[in-house]
Amino acid sequence: MTALDRLISYLSRMPGIGKKSATRMAYYILGQDQRFARSLADEIGSLHDRICPCSVCGNYTEGNLCEVCSDRQRDRSAICVVEHPQDVAVLEASGEYRGTYHVLGGVIAPIDGVGPEQLNIASLQSRVEKEGTRELIVATNPTVDGDATALYIARLFADRRITISRLALGLPVGGDLEYADRLTIARSLRGRVPLG
Amino acid sequence: MTALDRLISYLSRMPGIGKKSATRMAYYILGQDQRFARSLADEIGSLHDRICPCSVCGNYTEGNLCEVCSDRQRDRSAICVVEHPQDVAVLEASGEYRGTYHVLGGVIAPIDGVGPEQLNIASLQSRVEKEGTRELIVATNPTVDGDATALYIARLFADRRITISRLALGLPVGGDLEYADRLTIARSLRGRVPLG
Repeated sequence: MTALDRLISYLSRMPGIGKKSATRMAYYILGQDQRFARSLADEIGSLHDRICPCSVCGNYTEGNLCEVCSDRQRDRSAICVVEHPQDVAVLEASGEYRGTYHVLGGVIAPIDGVGPEQLNIASLQSRVEKEGTRELIVATNPTVDGDATALYIARLFADRRITISRLALGLPVGGDLEYADRLTIARSLRGRVPLG
Repeated sequence: MTALDRLISYLSRMPGIGKKSATRMAYYILGQDQRFARSLADEIGSLHDRICPCSVCGNYTEGNLCEVCSDRQRDRSAICVVEHPQDVAVLEASGEYRGTYHVLGGVIAPIDGVGPEQLNIASLQSRVEKEGTRELIVATNPTVDGDATALYIARLFADRRITISRLALGLPVGGDLEYADRLTIARSLRGRVPLG
Protein backbone atom coordinates (compact mmCIF):
# COMPACT_ATOMS: atom_id res chain seq x y z
CA MET A 1 0.00 0.00 0.00
CA THR A 2 1.46 3.34 -1.00
CA ALA A 3 1.52 6.43 1.24
CA LEU A 4 -1.22 7.91 -0.93
CA ASP A 5 -3.43 4.83 -0.59
CA ARG A 6 -2.96 4.83 3.17
CA LEU A 7 -3.97 8.49 3.42
CA ILE A 8 -7.00 7.86 1.19
CA SER A 9 -8.10 4.97 3.39
CA TYR A 10 -7.78 7.13 6.53
CA LEU A 11 -9.74 9.98 4.95
CA SER A 12 -12.45 7.57 3.73
CA ARG A 13 -13.24 6.71 7.33
CA MET A 14 -14.62 10.21 7.91
CA PRO A 15 -18.39 10.64 7.87
CA GLY A 16 -19.72 11.66 4.47
CA ILE A 17 -16.37 11.14 2.76
CA GLY A 18 -16.38 8.39 0.15
CA LYS A 19 -13.39 6.98 -1.70
CA LYS A 20 -13.71 9.57 -4.47
CA SER A 21 -13.75 12.58 -2.14
CA ALA A 22 -10.89 11.08 -0.11
CA THR A 23 -8.84 10.61 -3.28
CA ARG A 24 -9.51 14.18 -4.35
CA MET A 25 -8.46 15.46 -0.93
CA ALA A 26 -5.27 13.39 -0.86
CA TYR A 27 -4.22 14.62 -4.31
CA TYR A 28 -5.11 18.17 -3.31
CA ILE A 29 -2.88 17.98 -0.24
CA LEU A 30 -0.06 16.54 -2.33
CA GLY A 31 -0.55 19.25 -4.97
CA GLN A 32 -0.27 22.05 -2.40
CA ASP A 33 2.86 23.44 -0.87
CA GLN A 34 4.33 21.17 1.82
CA ARG A 35 3.69 23.92 4.38
CA PHE A 36 -0.05 23.40 3.97
CA ALA A 37 0.32 19.66 4.62
CA ARG A 38 2.52 20.34 7.65
CA SER A 39 0.11 22.88 9.13
CA LEU A 40 -2.87 20.61 8.55
CA ALA A 41 -0.99 17.66 10.08
CA ASP A 42 -0.05 19.85 13.06
CA GLU A 43 -3.64 20.88 13.68
CA ILE A 44 -4.90 17.31 13.44
CA GLY A 45 -2.13 15.78 15.53
CA SER A 46 -2.42 18.32 18.35
CA LEU A 47 -6.22 18.51 18.43
CA HIS A 48 -6.62 16.10 21.35
CA ASP A 49 -3.92 17.89 23.37
CA ARG A 50 -5.51 21.29 22.87
CA ILE A 51 -9.16 20.43 23.32
CA CYS A 52 -10.75 18.76 26.35
CA PRO A 53 -14.27 18.43 27.75
CA CYS A 54 -15.60 21.37 29.78
CA SER A 55 -15.46 20.38 33.47
CA VAL A 56 -19.08 21.47 33.96
CA CYS A 57 -21.05 20.53 30.84
CA GLY A 58 -18.78 18.26 28.78
CA ASN A 59 -18.72 20.56 25.74
CA TYR A 60 -15.35 20.91 23.96
CA THR A 61 -13.10 23.65 25.25
CA GLU A 62 -9.46 24.68 25.20
CA GLY A 63 -9.60 25.78 28.83
CA ASN A 64 -11.27 24.43 31.96
CA LEU A 65 -14.71 25.91 31.22
CA CYS A 66 -16.31 26.12 27.77
CA GLU A 67 -17.42 29.39 26.21
CA VAL A 68 -21.01 28.97 27.38
CA CYS A 69 -20.21 27.93 30.95
CA SER A 70 -17.75 30.78 31.39
CA ASP A 71 -20.24 33.35 30.06
CA ARG A 72 -21.85 35.09 33.05
CA GLN A 73 -24.70 36.37 30.88
CA ARG A 74 -26.12 32.88 30.32
CA ASP A 75 -29.18 31.76 32.18
CA ARG A 76 -27.97 29.10 34.58
CA SER A 77 -31.47 27.97 35.54
CA ALA A 78 -31.89 26.19 32.18
CA ILE A 79 -29.90 23.24 30.87
CA CYS A 80 -30.22 21.94 27.33
CA VAL A 81 -29.19 18.27 27.23
CA VAL A 82 -27.53 17.17 23.98
CA GLU A 83 -25.86 14.01 22.69
CA HIS A 84 -22.61 15.42 21.32
CA PRO A 85 -20.47 18.59 21.54
CA GLN A 86 -21.26 19.41 17.91
CA ASP A 87 -24.94 19.70 18.86
CA VAL A 88 -24.02 22.61 21.12
CA ALA A 89 -22.47 24.43 18.15
CA VAL A 90 -25.61 23.81 16.07
CA LEU A 91 -27.96 25.07 18.78
CA GLU A 92 -25.74 28.09 19.46
CA ALA A 93 -25.80 28.97 15.77
CA SER A 94 -29.58 29.33 15.96
CA GLY A 95 -29.12 32.19 18.43
CA GLU A 96 -32.38 31.19 20.10
CA TYR A 97 -31.15 29.80 23.41
CA ARG A 98 -29.56 31.69 26.31
CA GLY A 99 -29.26 28.89 28.89
CA THR A 100 -26.47 26.38 29.45
CA TYR A 101 -25.82 22.91 28.02
CA HIS A 102 -25.02 19.40 29.15
CA VAL A 103 -23.32 16.95 26.80
CA LEU A 104 -24.29 13.32 27.42
CA GLY A 105 -21.59 11.90 25.15
CA GLY A 106 -24.08 9.66 23.34
CA VAL A 107 -27.43 8.00 23.93
CA ILE A 108 -28.61 4.98 25.85
CA ALA A 109 -28.27 2.10 23.40
CA PRO A 110 -28.51 -1.33 25.04
CA ILE A 111 -27.62 -3.11 21.77
CA ASP A 112 -24.28 -1.25 21.67
CA GLY A 113 -23.78 -1.83 25.39
CA VAL A 114 -24.30 1.84 26.28
CA GLY A 115 -26.24 2.27 29.52
CA PRO A 116 -26.88 5.45 31.57
CA GLU A 117 -23.66 4.89 33.51
CA GLN A 118 -21.60 5.23 30.32
CA LEU A 119 -23.06 8.68 29.71
CA ASN A 120 -22.64 11.99 31.58
CA ILE A 121 -25.93 11.50 33.43
CA ALA A 122 -24.58 11.36 36.99
CA SER A 123 -22.89 14.73 36.41
CA LEU A 124 -26.21 16.09 35.11
CA GLN A 125 -27.92 14.97 38.31
CA SER A 126 -25.36 16.63 40.54
CA ARG A 127 -25.53 19.80 38.41
CA VAL A 128 -29.31 19.96 38.72
CA GLU A 129 -28.92 19.42 42.47
CA LYS A 130 -26.26 22.10 42.89
CA GLU A 131 -27.39 24.74 40.43
CA GLY A 132 -31.09 24.63 41.29
CA THR A 133 -32.04 24.05 37.67
CA ARG A 134 -35.61 25.05 36.79
CA GLU A 135 -35.78 23.92 33.18
CA LEU A 136 -34.39 20.97 31.24
CA ILE A 137 -34.64 20.94 27.44
CA VAL A 138 -33.83 17.49 26.16
CA ALA A 139 -32.36 17.93 22.68
CA THR A 140 -31.28 14.38 21.91
CA ASN A 141 -31.85 13.39 18.27
CA PRO A 142 -35.39 12.36 17.23
CA THR A 143 -34.39 8.69 16.85
CA VAL A 144 -35.46 5.58 18.75
CA ASP A 145 -32.40 5.77 21.04
CA GLY A 146 -32.64 9.54 21.34
CA ASP A 147 -36.30 9.29 22.35
CA ALA A 148 -35.58 6.53 24.88
CA THR A 149 -32.78 8.58 26.40
CA ALA A 150 -35.04 11.65 26.62
CA LEU A 151 -37.68 9.55 28.40
CA TYR A 152 -35.09 8.14 30.80
CA ILE A 153 -33.95 11.67 31.72
CA ALA A 154 -37.52 12.91 32.08
CA ARG A 155 -38.27 10.09 34.54
CA LEU A 156 -35.07 10.74 36.45
CA PHE A 157 -36.19 14.26 37.30
CA ALA A 158 -39.94 13.59 37.42
CA ASP A 159 -40.21 14.13 41.19
CA ARG A 160 -38.57 17.55 41.05
CA ARG A 161 -40.10 20.90 40.21
CA ILE A 162 -38.41 21.14 36.86
CA THR A 163 -40.01 21.96 33.52
CA ILE A 164 -38.81 19.26 31.17
CA SER A 165 -39.34 19.63 27.45
CA ARG A 166 -38.19 18.13 24.20
CA LEU A 167 -37.45 19.89 20.87
CA ALA A 168 -40.53 20.24 18.63
CA LEU A 169 -40.92 17.81 15.75
CA GLY A 170 -42.41 19.00 12.47
CA LEU A 171 -41.69 20.33 9.03
CA PRO A 172 -38.30 21.96 8.45
CA VAL A 173 -38.60 25.70 7.74
CA GLY A 174 -38.64 26.31 3.99
CA GLY A 175 -39.49 22.65 3.47
CA ASP A 176 -42.14 21.17 1.22
CA LEU A 177 -45.03 19.00 2.40
CA GLU A 178 -44.57 16.86 -0.70
CA TYR A 179 -41.07 15.80 0.34
CA ALA A 180 -41.71 15.29 4.05
CA ASP A 181 -41.92 11.69 5.28
CA ARG A 182 -45.11 10.28 6.80
CA LEU A 183 -43.84 10.28 10.38
CA THR A 184 -42.78 13.91 10.20
CA ILE A 185 -46.17 14.88 8.73
CA ALA A 186 -47.91 12.94 11.51
CA ARG A 187 -45.82 14.69 14.17
CA SER A 188 -46.40 18.11 12.62
CA LEU A 189 -50.16 17.46 12.76
CA ARG A 190 -50.09 16.23 16.32
CA GLY A 191 -47.97 19.22 17.38
CA ARG A 192 -49.96 21.80 15.43
CA VAL A 193 -49.97 25.29 16.94
CA PRO A 194 -52.91 27.75 17.08
CA LEU A 195 -52.77 30.58 14.57
CA GLY A 196 -53.30 34.25 15.40
CA MET B 1 -9.84 31.32 16.68
CA THR B 2 -9.99 27.98 18.46
CA ALA B 3 -8.00 24.90 17.42
CA LEU B 4 -11.23 23.40 16.12
CA ASP B 5 -12.04 26.48 14.02
CA ARG B 6 -8.53 26.49 12.59
CA LEU B 7 -8.79 22.83 11.58
CA ILE B 8 -12.21 23.46 10.03
CA SER B 9 -10.84 26.35 8.00
CA TYR B 10 -7.94 24.17 6.74
CA LEU B 11 -10.28 21.32 5.81
CA SER B 12 -12.67 23.73 4.05
CA ARG B 13 -9.92 24.59 1.58
CA MET B 14 -10.09 21.09 0.11
CA PRO B 15 -11.97 20.64 -3.15
CA GLY B 16 -15.58 19.60 -2.64
CA ILE B 17 -15.44 20.14 1.14
CA GLY B 18 -17.72 22.89 2.38
CA LYS B 19 -17.88 24.30 5.90
CA LYS B 20 -20.43 21.69 6.98
CA SER B 21 -18.40 18.68 5.82
CA ALA B 22 -15.24 20.20 7.30
CA THR B 23 -17.00 20.67 10.65
CA ARG B 24 -18.23 17.09 10.59
CA MET B 25 -14.74 15.82 9.83
CA ALA B 26 -13.12 17.91 12.57
CA TYR B 27 -15.61 16.68 15.18
CA TYR B 28 -15.16 13.12 13.92
CA ILE B 29 -11.38 13.34 14.36
CA LEU B 30 -11.84 14.79 17.84
CA GLY B 31 -14.35 12.07 18.71
CA GLN B 32 -11.97 9.27 17.70
CA ASP B 33 -9.09 7.90 19.68
CA GLN B 34 -6.04 10.18 19.65
CA ARG B 35 -4.11 7.44 17.83
CA PHE B 36 -6.29 7.94 14.77
CA ALA B 37 -5.58 11.68 14.76
CA ARG B 38 -1.86 11.03 15.21
CA SER B 39 -1.73 8.48 12.36
CA LEU B 40 -3.71 10.73 10.05
CA ALA B 41 -1.48 13.69 10.93
CA ASP B 42 1.59 11.52 10.28
CA GLU B 43 0.39 10.48 6.86
CA ILE B 44 -0.47 14.03 5.86
CA GLY B 45 2.72 15.57 7.26
CA SER B 46 5.04 13.05 5.62
CA LEU B 47 3.24 12.84 2.27
CA HIS B 48 5.57 15.25 0.48
CA ASP B 49 8.66 13.48 1.85
CA ARG B 50 7.46 10.08 0.71
CA ILE B 51 6.06 10.92 -2.69
CA CYS B 52 7.92 12.59 -5.56
CA PRO B 53 7.41 12.92 -9.31
CA CYS B 54 8.54 9.99 -11.47
CA SER B 55 11.80 11.00 -13.17
CA VAL B 56 10.44 9.90 -16.56
CA CYS B 57 6.76 10.80 -16.73
CA GLY B 58 6.07 13.08 -13.76
CA ASN B 59 3.46 10.77 -12.20
CA TYR B 60 3.57 10.42 -8.40
CA THR B 61 5.82 7.68 -7.06
CA GLU B 62 7.56 6.66 -3.86
CA GLY B 63 10.68 5.58 -5.76
CA ASN B 64 12.57 6.93 -8.76
CA LEU B 65 10.24 5.46 -11.38
CA CYS B 66 6.45 5.23 -11.09
CA GLU B 67 4.56 1.95 -11.30
CA VAL B 68 3.81 2.35 -15.00
CA CYS B 69 7.31 3.42 -16.05
CA SER B 70 8.94 0.57 -14.13
CA ASP B 71 6.57 -2.02 -15.65
CA ARG B 72 8.38 -3.74 -18.52
CA GLN B 73 5.10 -5.03 -19.91
CA ARG B 74 3.89 -1.56 -20.87
CA ASP B 75 3.98 -0.43 -24.48
CA ARG B 76 6.66 2.26 -24.59
CA SER B 77 5.75 3.36 -28.11
CA ALA B 78 2.61 5.12 -26.83
CA ILE B 79 2.42 8.06 -24.45
CA CYS B 80 -0.82 9.35 -22.98
CA VAL B 81 -0.43 13.02 -22.03
CA VAL B 82 -2.44 14.13 -18.99
CA GLU B 83 -2.76 17.28 -16.90
CA HIS B 84 -2.35 15.88 -13.40
CA PRO B 85 -1.08 12.72 -11.65
CA GLN B 86 -4.63 11.87 -10.54
CA ASP B 87 -5.61 11.58 -14.22
CA VAL B 88 -3.15 8.67 -14.52
CA ALA B 89 -4.97 6.85 -11.71
CA VAL B 90 -8.33 7.44 -13.40
CA LEU B 91 -7.13 6.17 -16.80
CA GLU B 92 -5.42 3.17 -15.18
CA ALA B 93 -8.65 2.27 -13.41
CA SER B 94 -10.35 1.87 -16.80
CA GLY B 95 -7.93 -0.97 -17.60
CA GLU B 96 -8.10 0.04 -21.27
CA TYR B 97 -4.65 1.46 -21.86
CA ARG B 98 -1.32 -0.40 -21.91
CA GLY B 99 1.05 2.41 -22.89
CA THR B 100 2.90 4.95 -20.75
CA TYR B 101 1.95 8.42 -19.50
CA HIS B 102 3.32 11.92 -19.37
CA VAL B 103 2.07 14.37 -16.73
CA LEU B 104 2.12 18.00 -17.88
CA GLY B 105 1.47 19.41 -14.41
CA GLY B 106 -1.34 21.63 -15.68
CA VAL B 107 -2.48 23.28 -18.89
CA ILE B 108 -1.42 26.31 -20.87
CA ALA B 109 -3.42 29.17 -19.36
CA PRO B 110 -2.11 32.62 -20.37
CA ILE B 111 -4.54 34.36 -17.98
CA ASP B 112 -2.97 32.51 -15.03
CA GLY B 113 0.51 33.11 -16.42
CA VAL B 114 1.06 29.46 -17.31
CA GLY B 115 2.92 29.01 -20.59
CA PRO B 116 4.42 25.87 -22.15
CA GLU B 117 7.71 26.46 -20.30
CA GLN B 118 5.92 26.12 -16.92
CA LEU B 119 4.69 22.64 -17.92
CA ASN B 120 6.54 19.37 -18.49
CA ILE B 121 6.52 19.84 -22.26
CA ALA B 122 10.29 20.02 -22.84
CA SER B 123 10.65 16.65 -21.10
CA LEU B 124 7.88 15.26 -23.34
CA GLN B 125 9.81 16.40 -26.40
CA SER B 126 13.03 14.77 -25.28
CA ARG B 127 11.14 11.58 -24.38
CA VAL B 128 9.54 11.39 -27.82
CA GLU B 129 12.97 11.99 -29.35
CA LYS B 130 14.69 9.35 -27.22
CA GLU B 131 12.01 6.66 -27.00
CA GLY B 132 10.91 6.78 -30.63
CA THR B 133 7.28 7.31 -29.66
CA ARG B 134 4.78 6.30 -32.35
CA GLU B 135 1.54 7.39 -30.69
CA LEU B 136 0.51 10.33 -28.54
CA ILE B 137 -2.91 10.34 -26.89
CA VAL B 138 -3.65 13.80 -25.55
CA ALA B 139 -5.96 13.33 -22.57
CA THR B 140 -6.11 16.87 -21.23
CA ASN B 141 -9.57 17.85 -19.94
CA PRO B 142 -12.22 18.85 -22.50
CA THR B 143 -12.09 22.51 -21.44
CA VAL B 144 -10.96 25.62 -23.31
CA ASP B 145 -7.48 25.48 -21.79
CA GLY B 146 -7.29 21.69 -22.15
CA ASP B 147 -8.23 21.92 -25.82
CA ALA B 148 -5.71 24.72 -26.45
CA THR B 149 -2.98 22.69 -24.77
CA ALA B 150 -3.87 19.63 -26.85
CA LEU B 151 -3.66 21.71 -30.00
CA TYR B 152 -0.31 23.13 -28.94
CA ILE B 153 1.09 19.64 -28.40
CA ALA B 154 -0.35 18.38 -31.68
CA ARG B 155 1.39 21.22 -33.54
CA LEU B 156 4.63 20.61 -31.70
CA PHE B 157 4.87 17.08 -33.11
CA ALA B 158 3.11 17.74 -36.43
CA ASP B 159 6.26 17.26 -38.51
CA ARG B 160 6.98 13.83 -37.05
CA ARG B 161 5.51 10.46 -37.94
CA ILE B 162 3.44 10.19 -34.80
CA THR B 163 -0.25 9.34 -34.54
CA ILE B 164 -1.72 12.04 -32.33
CA SER B 165 -5.23 11.64 -30.96
CA ARG B 166 -7.50 13.13 -28.36
CA LEU B 167 -10.02 11.34 -26.10
CA ALA B 168 -13.46 10.95 -27.65
CA LEU B 169 -16.20 13.34 -26.56
CA GLY B 170 -19.76 12.11 -26.26
CA LEU B 171 -22.37 10.75 -23.91
CA PRO B 172 -21.22 9.15 -20.68
CA VAL B 173 -21.92 5.40 -20.58
CA GLY B 174 -25.20 4.75 -18.77
CA GLY B 175 -26.11 8.41 -19.22
CA ASP B 176 -29.36 9.84 -20.43
CA LEU B 177 -29.81 12.02 -23.52
CA GLU B 178 -32.29 14.10 -21.57
CA TYR B 179 -29.66 15.19 -19.06
CA ALA B 180 -26.75 15.74 -21.43
CA ASP B 181 -25.84 19.36 -22.25
CA ARG B 182 -26.11 20.77 -25.77
CA LEU B 183 -22.38 20.81 -26.43
CA THR B 184 -21.98 17.17 -25.43
CA ILE B 185 -24.90 16.17 -27.64
CA ALA B 186 -23.37 18.14 -30.53
CA ARG B 187 -20.00 16.42 -30.03
CA SER B 188 -21.60 12.99 -29.78
CA LEU B 189 -23.34 13.63 -33.11
CA ARG B 190 -20.21 14.90 -34.80
CA GLY B 191 -18.24 11.92 -33.47
CA ARG B 192 -20.92 9.31 -34.27
CA VAL B 193 -19.54 5.86 -35.04
CA PRO B 194 -20.84 3.38 -37.68
CA LEU B 195 -22.89 0.52 -36.29
CA GLY B 196 -22.40 -3.12 -37.16
